[in-house]
Amino acid sequence: MDVLPESDTSTFTVPDRLTIQAVAKRRAASGQLIAGVAAPADIAAFKGRTQHIHKSNAKRWESRMTAEAMSRGGSSLKNAAKFLKTPGLISLGGGLPSAEYFPIEEMRFAVPRMVEQRNGHGQNGANNTGKYDMVSGTSDYDIATALQYGQGHGAAQLLRWIVEHTEVVHDPPYQDWSCTMTIGSTSAFEMLLRMFAKPGDWVLSEEYTFPAAVEAALPMGVRVAAVKMDEGGMLASSLDEVLANWDETARRGPKPFLLYTVPTGQNPTGSTQSLARRREIYAVAQKHDLLILEDEPYYFLQMQPYTGPSTPDPPAPKSHQEFLTSLVPSYLSLDTDGRVVRLDSFSKVIAPGTRVGWITAPEEICKRYHIHSDLSTQSPSGASQLLLFKLLEEGWGHGGYLDWLVRIRMAYTARRNVILEACEEFLPKEIVSWTPPQAGMFMWLKVDWKEHPKFPGIEPEEVEEALFQANIRRGTLLMKGSWFVGEKGLKAEEMFFRATYAAAPSEGIREAVRRFGEAVREVFGVGMGEVNVKEM
Amino acid sequence: MDVLPESDTSTFTVPDRLTIQAVAKRRAASGQLIAGVAAPADIAAFKGRTQHIHKSNAKRWESRMTAEAMSRGGSSLKNAAKFLKTPGLISLGGGLPSAEYFPIEEMRFAVPRMVEQRNGHGQNGANNTGKYDMVSGTSDYDIATALQYGQGHGAAQLLRWIVEHTEVVHDPPYQDWSCTMTIGSTSAFEMLLRMFAKPGDWVLSEEYTFPAAVEAALPMGVRVAAVKMDEGGMLASSLDEVLANWDETARRGPKPFLLYTVPTGQNPTGSTQSLARRREIYAVAQKHDLLILEDEPYYFLQMQPYTGPSTPDPPAPKSHQEFLTSLVPSYLSLDTDGRVVRLDSFSKVIAPGTRVGWITAPEEICKRYHIHSDLSTQSPSGASQLLLFKLLEEGWGHGGYLDWLVRIRMAYTARRNVILEACEEFLPKEIVSWTPPQAGMFMWLKVDWKEHPKFPGIEPEEVEEALFQANIRRGTLLMKGSWFVGEKGLKAEEMFFRATYAAAPSEGIREAVRRFGEAVREVFGVGMGEVNVKEM
Repeated sequence: MDVLPESDTSTFTVPDRLTIQAVAKRRAASGQLIAGVAAPADIAAFKGRTQHIHKSNAKRWESRMTAEAMSRGGSSLKNAAKFLKTPGLISLGGGLPSAEYFPIEEMRFAVPRMVEQRNGHGQNGANNTGKYDMVSGTSDYDIATALQYGQGHGAAQLLRWIVEHTEVVHDPPYQDWSCTMTIGSTSAFEMLLRMFAKPGDWVLSEEYTFPAAVEAALPMGVRVAAVKMDEGGMLASSLDEVLANWDETARRGPKPFLLYTVPTGQNPTGSTQSLARRREIYAVAQKHDLLILEDEPYYFLQMQPYTGPSTPDPPAPKSHQEFLTSLVPSYLSLDTDGRVVRLDSFSKVIAPGTRVGWITAPEEICKRYHIHSDLSTQSPSGASQLLLFKLLEEGWGHGGYLDWLVRIRMAYTARRNVILEACEEFLPKEIVSWTPPQAGMFMWLKVDWKEHPKFPGIEPEEVEEALFQANIRRGTLLMKGSWFVGEKGLKAEEMFFRATYAAAPSEGIREAVRRFGEAVREVFGVGMGEVNVKEM
Repeated sequence: MDVLPESDTSTFTVPDRLTIQAVAKRRAASGQLIAGVAAPADIAAFKGRTQHIHKSNAKRWESRMTAEAMSRGGSSLKNAAKFLKTPGLISLGGGLPSAEYFPIEEMRFAVPRMVEQRNGHGQNGANNTGKYDMVSGTSDYDIATALQYGQGHGAAQLLRWIVEHTEVVHDPPYQDWSCTMTIGSTSAFEMLLRMFAKPGDWVLSEEYTFPAAVEAALPMGVRVAAVKMDEGGMLASSLDEVLANWDETARRGPKPFLLYTVPTGQNPTGSTQSLARRREIYAVAQKHDLLILEDEPYYFLQMQPYTGPSTPDPPAPKSHQEFLTSLVPSYLSLDTDGRVVRLDSFSKVIAPGTRVGWITAPEEICKRYHIHSDLSTQSPSGASQLLLFKLLEEGWGHGGYLDWLVRIRMAYTARRNVILEACEEFLPKEIVSWTPPQAGMFMWLKVDWKEHPKFPGIEPEEVEEALFQANIRRGTLLMKGSWFVGEKGLKAEEMFFRATYAAAPSEGIREAVRRFGEAVREVFGVGMGEVNVKEM
C-alpha cells in the first residue's frame, strides 16, 4: 500500500469559485429577500443563474427511480398556494394556526463572535429575535414565520445562505444543481434509498462503513456490497472489479448503481480520499454509470498536516482563500456529469441537535426529495432554522462561518495530536499500528491478532472480544472494528479498534490510550513497558 | 341525519384520572431525573408502573407488521452504550462532537406567564438556559445535552412530561402503553404505514380526509377506502358495511385492518365524533380486529358550545377538572384492548415549527417506532425540545399548560363565532348550509349544486370550479371539497367548500365570507341580498 501525500490539493483549484464579496454583490443586485409563511424558495435565483449558463445540464436519473418516488405527486393543497399572490386576497384556505397563539414572544441566542462578522448584534454576540421582526422590518426572518408550517426544502432565508455557501466551497461544474434542506444525513440517506433502491438491490460502500447506513438499508431489503480500502480510503480498482465481475445470480440482485461513500475522515477508518483517488473513483463511476452518495459530515474536520511529536504545529490558514484551497476537493466540485448527491450536515461543526442538513444534487433529485419531505418530515425544526439563521446569516455571515471552521480545524488538530502522541507513547508498536488521520474524529487502530500467543489456534473474533473486555475492565471503551463490516457474512482477515478523539478531554484521551495499551499487553502477554510499570 | 348534542361527555369520566398533584407526588418519590447525553428513557418509571398493574396488557401486533419493521434490529453501536455505566470509564467510543464546539452559549425564550406556573423564571416569564446547566445543577436539561445526539424517543426530560400529560388527560385503560416522540404527525403517519402497510393494502378513512395522508400512502401502493360520514363524523354502520362486504378480488387487496381517523374537529369537515359514536366505532374495530390510528391535532381545539348569534358566550371552564371533563373522551381513553395508536402534536396548540409530537401506543409499537427513528429521523430537534422543556416543564408545568389550553379554547371559540355569524349574515341559506363546528379550525360549507340554473345539464365539478374561480376573482380563497376525497375515483354527489377561521383576523374572516356569499349568488344567479347591495 502506498504512502499518501498529506495533501494533494495543489493540482486542483475550483475554477472561478464564488467569492464572499461576489455573494454580497449578487444579493445587492437581487434586492431584499421577501419570503413569508411557507414561501417556496427560488433556489435558481440564489445561485445567480446567469453565472452557470455556460455549464451543461445534469444527467437525468428518472429511469433509476423507484415507483414510489416517481408516483409521488405534489401536494394538492399546496397547488392552491399559487392563488395567494392575488392582490388583496383573504385566505380562508390553509389550516395554519395564527401566530398570535404561538406562546413564544422572543428568542435570544448568545453565540461567540467571529473576527469577520456580517452584523454586530451587541458586544456579547447575542442574537435577538422577535415574533414579528419581518413586519417591523428588523429582520428577514422571525418567530411567526419560523415556527409556522414551512416548505419541505426549509425556509428560503436559511436556504439562500446554504446555496451560496455550497457555491463558495464547491461550485458544482454543471448548471442545474440545487439544494434542499434535510433533517440530517441519517434521514437523507433513508429518503434517498426510498428514491433509488428496491428490495433486492445492492449499494456499494467501503468495506468498513457507517453501521446506521447498513442498518437503515437492510430492513428495506437493500444490501451493502463491500469495496476494498487502503489507508487512503476506497480503492478505485476494487470498485471497478466488484462491478465488472458482478454476478446477478450469485448475488441475487442487479448490478448496483448506488455508491455510498464517506470520502473525508471516513467513519470508522478515519481515511481521507486524495484528489487523485477521487478522480479515479469518479472515472469508475462514469464507466459503470453510478450515482455517488457523498456523505460528508467530516469535510470541515480536515486538519493541519501532522508533523510528528515534539515538532511545532503548522500555522493556521491565513485567509479564507488559503483555508478553502487547503481542503481536498469534493466529489461535488468534480461532478461534471451531475451524478453526485452530496449530503451535508451541521452536526459536526455546529451541533447534532439542530437536526438540519442539506443535499446538493441535480435539480430533479432535489425536487423529488422536497416533495417527499412535504409528505413526511415536513421541514426542519423552525427553532433550529431560526438559530442557524441568526448565527450564520445575521451573525457570522459567510466569512465568519469560515473563521469558525478554521477554529474547529485547529481544535481538532490539537485533539488528534494528543491521541497520536499518546499512541506513540503507550501502545506496543509490534502489535498495534495506525495512520495519522487527516480528517474527521476517528483513529483506526490495527491490531495484529496473529501476534496472539495462541495463534494459529484462535479466531480473530475471540481475540477482538478478549481485547474489548480487557478494555472495559480497565475502564476504557473503544469500538470493535467488526461492528463496522458493511457486507454481512464477509469474514475479516484483519482486526481493528476505533477510537474517537472528539469527545473526551485531553487528559481523558491520554489515560484511555494508556489503559488500552495495558489491555493489549495483557491479552497478547507481552511486557508492560517501562512507562506503565512505573505507573502501576 | 340526526342532530347531535353539543357535548355528551357527561356519561363518561376517565376513571381514577391521574391528577396534577399526584404527578408531583410521584416525582418527589422517584427523585431527581438524571439523564445525560442520549440517555435511554425509563418510560415505565414515568408512568408509575405500580398504578397500572391491575390493568391487562395490550394485544400483540407483530403478526400485522411488515417485514421491514420486523427485520429492523437495534443499532449495533448503541448496544455498546450499556458499558458507559461502568464507573470511571473513559469512552473513546461514540463519535459525538464535544459540546465545547457548539457555538451556542445561552438561549433565552420569552413566553407568556400562566396563572398556575411551576416555577417563576423572572417577572417577564423568560426562560434562560445555559450550556452546562446540568453540571451546575441549575436545570435537568441544558444546551450541551439538547444539542447533542439523542435517542429516537426524544429527550427523557421532555418525554417524562409528555407521558405524565398523556396519563393526566387520557389514562389509557391497559397496562403496557407507552409514548415515543415524533417529529410531527405527518412523519408519524408515514412511519406507521411503513410499519403496518404493504403495497396493495388499503387503509380505511373518512370519505373526506386529510389529503397529505392519502398522498403519503399512494406512492407506497397503499390505497384509502372511504367510510361514509354525517355531521358527527365517521359512521360506524358504514365502517362495518365496508368491512363486512370487502371483496378482495374487486378491491385487489386484502381486507383492511388499519383505520385512520381524525375524531375531533376533523379535517376538512370540522366534525367531531361524539362519545357514543366513538364507542360504536371502537366496537366495530373490535369486531373486525382493526388497529386505529387516532390522529388528534385538534383535540384541544374543542370549543365552548355554540349558543347562536347575539347570545352571551358561556363562561370558560373554572377548573382543570372542569376543563378535562368538558373534552370528548379520546379513543385512547376507551382503549381496553391496546388497539389504538394515538398521534399527538404541538402544531396547533404551541406552534407547527417545533416539529415535535408523540405517539401513544402499546409498548411494542413504540419500541419499533423508536428503533426506526434512530435510523431515520434520529430525534426531534434539540432546539425545539429545549424550547418545549423550558415552556412546559420548567415554565408552565402541567397546570399552566392546561391554563394555556383553556385560553386557546376561548380564542378559537371567539373566532368560530365570528365565522358563524358572518355565514348567517352573508350566505344565501337556500344554497349554502353548515353545522357549527364543535372543535378544530374548519367550517365545512355544503353548497347545493343542484340549485344551479343549468342543472341537470351541468356536472358538480363544473359548478365547483366556477365557484372557486368566482371566489378568486373576488379575492377570497376557500378550498374545494373535492380535493379532500380520499378514495380516488369515487364520484361525489355533494359539494363542499372548506373555510378556516384559524388564520385570518376577524375583519378578514367577515370580509372573506361576504365575498364568498357574493360569489355564490353570482354563480347561482340569485339576488344579491340587501346587505350586499348596500355595500357595492
